[in-house]
Amino acid sequence: MLYTEIPSQRPNTPLLDTIDHPQQLRLLERSQLEQVADELRQFILYAAGQSGGHFGANLGVIELTVALHYCFNTPNDRLIWDVGHQAYPHKALTGRREQLVTIRSKDGLAAFPAREESEFDTFGVGHSSTAISAGLGMSLARRYQKDPCDVVAIVGDGAMTAGMAFEAMNDAVAHNADLMVVLNDNDMSISCSTGGFAKHLAALWERGESVNISEDGDAFVQPYPEWAYNSRLHSAATDAADNLFKAVGFDYFGPFDGHDVNQLAQVFDALKKRSGPRLIHIYTKKGKGFVPAEADQIKYHAISKLNAPAVANTAPKYSDVFGQWLCDEAAQDERLIAITPAMCEGSGMVKFAQQYPERYFDVAIAEQHAVTLAAGMACEGLKPVVAIYSTFLQRGYDQLVHDVALQNLDVTFGIDRAGLVGEDGPTHAGAYDYAYMRTIPNIVIMAPKDENECRQMLHTAYLYNGPAAVRYPRGNGLGVEMQNKLTAMEIGKAEILAVYNEQYGDCISVLAFGSRVQAALQAAQSFAKQHDVAVRVVNMRYVKPLDEQLIDAVADDTALFVTVEEHAVMGGAGSAVNEYLAKAHIVKPICNLGLEDEFLHQATHSQMLQQAGLDAQGIENSIKHAWLKVINIAP
Amino acid sequence: MLYTEIPSQRPNTPLLDTIDHPQQLRLLERSQLEQVADELRQFILYAAGQSGGHFGANLGVIELTVALHYCFNTPNDRLIWDVGHQAYPHKALTGRREQLVTIRSKDGLAAFPAREESEFDTFGVGHSSTAISAGLGMSLARRYQKDPCDVVAIVGDGAMTAGMAFEAMNDAVAHNADLMVVLNDNDMSISCSTGGFAKHLAALWERGESVNISEDGDAFVQPYPEWAYNSRLHSAATDAADNLFKAVGFDYFGPFDGHDVNQLAQVFDALKKRSGPRLIHIYTKKGKGFVPAEADQIKYHAISKLNAPAVANTAPKYSDVFGQWLCDEAAQDERLIAITPAMCEGSGMVKFAQQYPERYFDVAIAEQHAVTLAAGMACEGLKPVVAIYSTFLQRGYDQLVHDVALQNLDVTFGIDRAGLVGEDGPTHAGAYDYAYMRTIPNIVIMAPKDENECRQMLHTAYLYNGPAAVRYPRGNGLGVEMQNKLTAMEIGKAEILAVYNEQYGDCISVLAFGSRVQAALQAAQSFAKQHDVAVRVVNMRYVKPLDEQLIDAVADDTALFVTVEEHAVMGGAGSAVNEYLAKAHIVKPICNLGLEDEFLHQATHSQMLQQAGLDAQGIENSIKHAWLKVINIAP
Repeated sequence: MLYTEIPSQRPNTPLLDTIDHPQQLRLLERSQLEQVADELRQFILYAAGQSGGHFGANLGVIELTVALHYCFNTPNDRLIWDVGHQAYPHKALTGRREQLVTIRSKDGLAAFPAREESEFDTFGVGHSSTAISAGLGMSLARRYQKDPCDVVAIVGDGAMTAGMAFEAMNDAVAHNADLMVVLNDNDMSISCSTGGFAKHLAALWERGESVNISEDGDAFVQPYPEWAYNSRLHSAATDAADNLFKAVGFDYFGPFDGHDVNQLAQVFDALKKRSGPRLIHIYTKKGKGFVPAEADQIKYHAISKLNAPAVANTAPKYSDVFGQWLCDEAAQDERLIAITPAMCEGSGMVKFAQQYPERYFDVAIAEQHAVTLAAGMACEGLKPVVAIYSTFLQRGYDQLVHDVALQNLDVTFGIDRAGLVGEDGPTHAGAYDYAYMRTIPNIVIMAPKDENECRQMLHTAYLYNGPAAVRYPRGNGLGVEMQNKLTAMEIGKAEILAVYNEQYGDCISVLAFGSRVQAALQAAQSFAKQHDVAVRVVNMRYVKPLDEQLIDAVADDTALFVTVEEHAVMGGAGSAVNEYLAKAHIVKPICNLGLEDEFLHQATHSQMLQQAGLDAQGIENSIKHAWLKVINIAP
Repeated sequence: MLYTEIPSQRPNTPLLDTIDHPQQLRLLERSQLEQVADELRQFILYAAGQSGGHFGANLGVIELTVALHYCFNTPNDRLIWDVGHQAYPHKALTGRREQLVTIRSKDGLAAFPAREESEFDTFGVGHSSTAISAGLGMSLARRYQKDPCDVVAIVGDGAMTAGMAFEAMNDAVAHNADLMVVLNDNDMSISCSTGGFAKHLAALWERGESVNISEDGDAFVQPYPEWAYNSRLHSAATDAADNLFKAVGFDYFGPFDGHDVNQLAQVFDALKKRSGPRLIHIYTKKGKGFVPAEADQIKYHAISKLNAPAVANTAPKYSDVFGQWLCDEAAQDERLIAITPAMCEGSGMVKFAQQYPERYFDVAIAEQHAVTLAAGMACEGLKPVVAIYSTFLQRGYDQLVHDVALQNLDVTFGIDRAGLVGEDGPTHAGAYDYAYMRTIPNIVIMAPKDENECRQMLHTAYLYNGPAAVRYPRGNGLGVEMQNKLTAMEIGKAEILAVYNEQYGDCISVLAFGSRVQAALQAAQSFAKQHDVAVRVVNMRYVKPLDEQLIDAVADDTALFVTVEEHAVMGGAGSAVNEYLAKAHIVKPICNLGLEDEFLHQATHSQMLQQAGLDAQGIENSIKHAWLKVINIAP
């Protein structure tokens, strides 16, 4: 069935309602699966409308999810959903149907599979391309334990470009592991897939034949149905005579229509009879069954809640500030090249990609390669800018250390989604980048207090002749005035924003970083009104190099230092201040505010900040607490 | 010519001596290349004997190196040597011949290509599998600059299993980049290659045909010479009808005999006439031309200096301590599984691999996969141990954060080569692991003061039900008595090793970590003899969780804290102590000793420690300096 609206009322789903455990699904006749799938699709439309969140990918795997839970003995058999933003139908079929409307909310279901949530969630995911490795680990473990089971990793075509997936396939063949990989080919990562692999998948389609499997588990080749030919966006460019999966040692089956639930069930049942590494290539459509989403897959990658309040925030998103800066800088300097690992929209690069196609490089989900590609370009005198989320830069960490920093190459990093990220939860938090970056020599690390400073910092980082990173949060700026003119800032120079209660001799120096500057300012002002002590607020701007001169200058009258950041306290920016105080023999009380040493569950960004004590009120409380300690211990 | 001895005298190399720049090589007739190669081989044998260092790989690429510099217009054309431990012949042909005997020594040539050393070293390497990414960056940059050149990335078959190489190939096809990849297939990484990719290369060999190229640049297929058939260790298992490189969109040529310098020259000249991504598959033999090395390729991966002093150190290597512990623990617990990313010998796992083949997993050069494979196994109740060098764990960082720590899975990490590593230089230093690990929640991080403590810590980490890492240095232990019995230590518990000058009221508390404990003890003892202050030395054992109780207990009488570690000061273990002091409102002077914020060039390990001020004398000097400051600023 095709749908054109997201229902605001829970649809009537009589058959689905009988399934609280996949065991109940498995009692149905195969002929009933289409109805289950149709009801599940209606239900997902409704639930996603209530919760907001990932959308198109979930609609695309309805039939696949039904077939998998129908054919495999879950949870004893292991399903591993790569990335996991397509796990809503899976959650709905495994006892969490009525909770699905809470997904991504505080105390609700997690946005992704999570081991602590359900025994059916075999592996916590969020970042792409881990499922084959994890599934291989499970399969080999169960073989070793002499308790084998079926293990199925479900991986999108976009995720297959990340090298990790290739590493895992290589290793699966080494062990002749009993592992099935379902390649969910929808010709997309979040944007269109690019590169040789995408062309190869297209080539496999254009062969016009499919490797099918009989009920006995024997493979046979049959002509491919007509509809498939025009289903892909790309035209084939690689050699259709060569099958990459077979080359690396997998048995290959498909392509199959991923929306034919009966055929899928038949294929999975047959495949269980075979052993060794098997790849099942299916074609699905993101947004399947919901007409607007089929028509605009990128727009419908995720949706907002149906009843979401009208957006009041008119300040630009940091991503858009980045994107605009990129265009402006590119207009001035033709050496600028921009690189993204498959995050064109998320990183605000759509306009740049249109304006400067020859300077825009979407390298697919391949963070390691993205960083070293930039290094190679920098060797030739270009000035590459890598746009990457904080959490994904973890994938390119070694390349940042060795290929960029060690060679002191001129690469600029626009690090988006830094700090807490709200509904996506801990898998997407950017809470560790200060720590993992500032330990590396040669790199400059900045964090803007607002969107205009972000713009000017990006310009500053770009002009800096070496590795430099600007780290900015998810979401909107503060609504400050934007200066079109790009003005380089002095490297390593902080600014004193305010001094409250200047009349007092003792002072609390609040050294604030990036996204927490504004809240620190509010906290300090409020605190100062109630206490007889001066409070100085510094926008530190640089995590590396620190403004040591400023710290020296304020140290004399400072009775208490407070550092504030949206990053783990351990190894963070405050820790850098501690190190400098130690080095400079400045012996003063210091209070480091930031994220405690725990992974935070999802909630809204402001809920999470509150929970972490990093909203204005929380900061004020902490300042007060620390100040009372200082007064008590003061001589 | 075949050689059986490493000459102690410089051989006579009249033709080679005329080549101080590859331009001079290019003036020779093609018929003279064999003589150049022969002289170069003799010279490399001699030079490597003088310097020690990588050996087999260099002998294997003599003909390839000659042919490349003969055919391509270096340095304007770009050669990128993946890993780079095979770059000795390249250095010899590019103006550094007579310096080659200094390679790996302090102030000598770098062990790997290094951009600051020569314009012919286009990209600094050391870690594997970066060359295609870097080369693609160069090629795309030169295209964009309308100044195209030939770019050749030379990659071993072992390095091709790392996913990053696949990411780069995928992207090269996306751009139809003018890039040549020479696949230097010697059936080896350092040990034998494993997995589907290795089997695929074997399959390509067993086809019995080679894709050759005419002088005009046209491809044609010809039967493959007889000798090739028996040249590989593996038997083919993957489908020989499918070519992985063609599947992903590369033009494929080969296999060719990589020791036929004339044919190589002919092929390269012809390939220059083609465009797009091209892969040239050649077969070479590690140790080629030196009979003992051809016979034992693993032993001759690297050699010691001919005139190296007899090894006086009889204390076991930390790697061997790890390997023995692994066997002992495995004997007691059948849930133990060991994983290495292609570092069986280096990580001391040969014995384990022999004793427990079904519990030993060499996943090839694939650090990302290694970590997540372990996570998957842990999900099924096994207790995987990942043996990995500190510098290579950087490649699996995201997986450590997300797949292991976030899920709090029971994976043990044996982190070898942590700290400075001597001759291999900055690309292999393990100077950042405390920082990048301790910012992550849930993980326990330990560092032993000696080899017996290393053994007991590994046992402790193994018993700990969650992610735990033991971080130990390159080289030998201290020669302490080993306790066969495995005894779990209390998590987060430090030990006070000594208190000198106990009669004084004020105390310097030296909090030492891991490999620097012994030197700190010596330094403290020596310092205490000359100063009227008590000095307490603590073996901290845990970087995370810190022994906060102990710090609280010693804080009262401590007038100066000193932290000592073989790790970057920024974000390191001392920084963790700073954070705790701040949190506990302990306001005392503290001096953080560790590595300064710079990449250190190669030298011997002890030279580097001295240079960093982390030998006993350096630590003593720093304690003295800090103490004098304290006395001056004390009230």
